[in-house]
Amino acid sequence: MILAKVEGSVVATKKNAKMTGTKFLVVRPLVIDSPAAKELRLGQSTLVASDSLGAGEGDCVLVVQGSSARLAAEDKNSPVDAVVIGIVDTVDLGKRILYKAE
Amino acid sequence: MILAKVEGSVVATKKNAKMTGTKFLVVRPLVIDSPAAKELRLGQSTLVASDSLGAGEGDCVLVVQGSSARLAAEDKNSPVDAVVIGIVDTVDLGKRILYKAE
Amino acid sequence: MILAKVEGSVVATKKNAKMTGTKFLVVRPLVIDSPAAKELRLGQSTLVASDSLGAGEGDCVLVVQGSSARLAAEDKNSPVDAVVIGIVDTVDLGKRILYKAE
Amino acid sequence: MILAKVEGSVVATKKNAKMTGTKFLVVRPLVIDSPAAKELRLGQSTLVASDSLGAGEGDCVLVVQGSSARLAAEDKNSPVDAVVIGIVDTVDLGKRILYKAE
Amino acid sequence: MILAKVEGSVVATKKNAKMTGTKFLVVRPLVIDSPAAKELRLGQSTLVASDSLGAGEGDCVLVVQGSSARLAAEDKNSPVDAVVIGIVDTVDLGKRILYKAE
Repeated sequence: MILAKVEGSVVATKKNAKMTGTKFLVVRPLVIDSPAAKELRLGQSTLVASDSLGAGEGDCVLVVQGSSARLAAEDKNSPVDAVVIGIVDTVDLGKRILYKAE
Repeated sequence: MILAKVEGSVVATKKNAKMTGTKFLVVRPLVIDSPAAKELRLGQSTLVASDSLGAGEGDCVLVVQGSSARLAAEDKNSPVDAVVIGIVDTVDLGKRILYKAE
Repeated sequence: MILAKVEGSVVATKKNAKMTGTKFLVVRPLVIDSPAAKELRLGQSTLVASDSLGAGEGDCVLVVQGSSARLAAEDKNSPVDAVVIGIVDTVDLGKRILYKAE
Repeated sequence: MILAKVEGSVVATKKNAKMTGTKFLVVRPLVIDSPAAKELRLGQSTLVASDSLGAGEGDCVLVVQGSSARLAAEDKNSPVDAVVIGIVDTVDLGKRILYKAE
Repeated sequence: MILAKVEGSVVATKKNAKMTGTKFLVVRPLVIDSPAAKELRLGQSTLVASDSLGAGEGDCVLVVQGSSARLAAEDKNSPVDAVVIGIVDTVDLGKRILYKAE
């Protein structure tokens, strides 16, 4: 899984019939760029994940990718490859708190 | 899923029998390269996706990859690993509109 | 899927029993490195794909990767993750022809 | 599989129902950056893996990714794409020991 | 599939029960870094693959990744994502021999 920040959303009216009602979020992977890091940093790639947990812009989320994403979707036959499976409360490295939801 | 721009098409007469009638599009991933970005930017990689939604050159599309792509294909046994699942209308980041179809 | 150029071949006498008779091609991904590109460019990575279409050195081919590759193999239980599914005739970007088989 | 170092943990109260009780570790891939390397080096990416072996911070672990990760999870229907499958004792390159657990 | 060089091995006493008896090799992907290359070059990444063919250090091997790796494993339910499926004899590019096992 990866940590990612919710940055926005995508609307597509013309889509695969199985996707009706699916909410598409634009997420950006978060990275810990050194062992001494004090906060999560925004990565370089851009991903679209579906969500049914109600994640909102600015949230830090856990995203599962690949075939396992389908097991997290509401419909197991959805053609999705990235789904939000958790809204993150905290990310800790030893005794340092790198992220804490407000 | 990823956002991508349709750039062209591929013709292959000699192909796997299950691919007869499949439309192959050349797509280029689109990225949001900074939190302050005002538009989508073309990424560096090149991908070929199959399409049954009628996407045309210049369209911004949602592409699903991996085994989930097969669930979006017309024939579930097609040996495809990237399929267009939506033609994008808008991409929003907070109150900024990064993309809006013409 | 990706576009790739067939560059060579691999021989492995000692191999998994399910691979007997499988032809292994060394292929190099082809990329379109700018919107104004006039030809396909050789990418940096090196991949080995199995082939039953008779692709030869110098050919531009379509390669499917991941679990979908098995659906393109002659034996669906072959442990392969990259298979040639088409020998490309043309790649077009708008009105420009980027590749045309000789 | 990849070698990775356990660096921390993630807590997410609001999560997919199948994930209840799952322990999420922040792991960083370890690389051998030259044939003459004398130790494992920390890589650049950040991954979250689930764990049921009791790996702790600082441990070197083996992580399996993709659909195979589900086979290593306690519940085969867990929507996970990275799971710890071993706590590493030693990594040897020829006669050199690159890593040895304390 | 990828070409890779066997560089070492990994020992993990505490591991997933399905992995008992599995041999884990440290392998490094091999690349052909230009069309005029005269030999295979060591790539940058580090991978751990399971092996039942008896590959040894220094061997050039074919590695399959992802779900297809399971089909090459002795136990189809092994949680593995990279398996050695062949020990390479030769890699040829046209009339040039890039690799020949001793």
